Amino acid sequence: MTFNLTCPVSASVADRILLAHGEGARLSRRLIREELLTAFANLLLAALADGATLPYIEGNVVMTIDSSVVTPLFFPGGDIGKLAIHGAINDLAVCGAEPLYLSVAFILEEGLPIEVLRRVVASMKDAAANCGIVIVTGDTKVVPRGNADQIFIATTGIGRLRPGVTLAMHRVQPGDVVISSGTIGDHGLAILAAREGLELGEGLTSDCAPLNEIVAHLLELGSDVHFLRDPTRGGVAAVMHELVEQTGLGVQLDESRLPISPAVRGASELLGLDPLHIANEGKVVAVVASRCADRAIAVLRQHSLGAQAAVIGDITPAPVEVVLRNRFGHLRVVDEPTGAPLPRIC
Amino acid sequence: MTFNLTCPVSASVADRILLAHGEGARLSRRLIREELLTAFANLLLAALADGATLPYIEGNVVMTIDSSVVTPLFFPGGDIGKLAIHGAINDLAVCGAEPLYLSVAFILEEGLPIEVLRRVVASMKDAAANCGIVIVTGDTKVVPRGNADQIFIATTGIGRLRPGVTLAMHRVQPGDVVISSGTIGDHGLAILAAREGLELGEGLTSDCAPLNEIVAHLLELGSDVHFLRDPTRGGVAAVMHELVEQTGLGVQLDESRLPISPAVRGASELLGLDPLHIANEGKVVAVVASRCADRAIAVLRQHSLGAQAAVIGDITPAPVEVVLRNRFGHLRVVDEPTGAPLPRIC
Repeated sequence: MTFNLTCPVSASVADRILLAHGEGARLSRRLIREELLTAFANLLLAALADGATLPYIEGNVVMTIDSSVVTPLFFPGGDIGKLAIHGAINDLAVCGAEPLYLSVAFILEEGLPIEVLRRVVASMKDAAANCGIVIVTGDTKVVPRGNADQIFIATTGIGRLRPGVTLAMHRVQPGDVVISSGTIGDHGLAILAAREGLELGEGLTSDCAPLNEIVAHLLELGSDVHFLRDPTRGGVAAVMHELVEQTGLGVQLDESRLPISPAVRGASELLGLDPLHIANEGKVVAVVASRCADRAIAVLRQHSLGAQAAVIGDITPAPVEVVLRNRFGHLRVVDEPTGAPLPRIC
Repeated sequence: MTFNLTCPVSASVADRILLAHGEGARLSRRLIREELLTAFANLLLAALADGATLPYIEGNVVMTIDSSVVTPLFFPGGDIGKLAIHGAINDLAVCGAEPLYLSVAFILEEGLPIEVLRRVVASMKDAAANCGIVIVTGDTKVVPRGNADQIFIATTGIGRLRPGVTLAMHRVQPGDVVISSGTIGDHGLAILAAREGLELGEGLTSDCAPLNEIVAHLLELGSDVHFLRDPTRGGVAAVMHELVEQTGLGVQLDESRLPISPAVRGASELLGLDPLHIANEGKVVAVVASRCADRAIAVLRQHSLGAQAAVIGDITPAPVEVVLRNRFGHLRVVDEPTGAPLPRIC
């Protein structure tokens, strides 16, 4: 026979992830107890059941799921752990929900230094604590070396729909304005520069941040807020394209109003990339009634994450396309990226 | 510069997963619409929001998470899709919850034939429909060739705690009996045989099955049912070890009463494996008050998944260990596996 039925495990604490850490027996339990339970400490998780029974939730439950496969694991402005937590929080936030609970599944590659896992877990702990969200249950799998790349993390968020919120794409109407809560393109370019070791100048930093607070403030404006989305993969362009596809309306963006940092502007010009195509991890795109635009901008700018909030465009009756008006008044069609400029950015 | 900013995408429908399928733009949406939405069709999912707003849930919500990394993807008795759905349902079931909703995250390897994804998705659709559980939201990531192995699936289950259920490890008492709902070791050996191409005789088939119905019947027996767990990775031995660790009690299993199929018995003797260490994917281990044992066995045997249900042991006051009484009355300690006999079995 050509396969190994067992592989040796040192009696001392291993400093790397072993296949046995995923086998559901003693080493699994030790890993969970020493590396995860101590970090994420809470009573629901401590029960170590196959699932968590949550305290009673008043109102409608909102549920999300996301997986994080970013490389490198650590980058300017964040890391895979922070991304996994904020991703779930942001998906809940743009659905109009107050984030409450998370479940987390790790897929670990054999040979991963436990120190790396520890850093990721510490970052997740801080990110969750800062948002008052509780990690209540989890799962850990280990795959043989070469069958995954270091760490993948799937995260499910559970939240409570804020009373009275009716966000939906079909509420978007001609005449509505499109708002970005801040600069665009920061996350994707920070990852690209970190991964490829590009010298693109200073200041390329991921915008990875939790949107629950700033979105809660925005939602206080009531039913004039029609639709929210966090423009992650595919950037603002992908959100706008999905919007025109689903609604049959058009979008006209205004190039001179797009908030873009000097670092992102420089790097994207150098690389021939369009910041509208580049992922963000701490921005919200809002479509609101035009009468509400000034108040929305004011509310966003009061929050530290919204200092550069701006109206970036309008919803038009037709044609069903996304166009950009440049500073000379000319219109050009904004396409979606059709290739794969930046795999594994989130 | 040494990296590619874009990779070519044929205009025709690709028959393999491309990096661009994960980029959040047009190809992502097409993949989701054509391969996932049509299969999992329901109104909640069709909204394609960042999350799903669930209908009002009366009572306590139970939440689980699990990831499936099994290889091979298809094996006698099941496939990774069925496993991903049943895994979530079973975790909810043994927590005493009625399964209601699922969210699913795919991590796909570039180059995966779309036909393979389609088969997995079709299997997930059938498994979910058979259990009356609805897939309400999802996520799809693509990683470059060699950064994952074909398909990984993370699944979160949301359920409603059945009224009056108080399952917990701390409710286990000396004198309680340990019940298995059927034969043990089937799943792990089926995977091992399929993966390694072993000729282990006929009849090695995964027991992959949803436990929600059989567990619901068992829970009608009321508070005499103290604790439930599905003995997946690490097998029955790992569940028993966790029980003695957490409760400070002992477990005495009875070798002559362990339900083991002839195929599993033969294969495990040949390979020198202990069926108590081998994973199951459609069995529940129950700890119940002894006065309830006969009724519990009767209820389990009425269900097609419980035809071979048996009392397999007792909870003892001390010492804190798991022992097996063989057919001659001798006791031996049941250890946990400390190596990694079977990576990627679920």
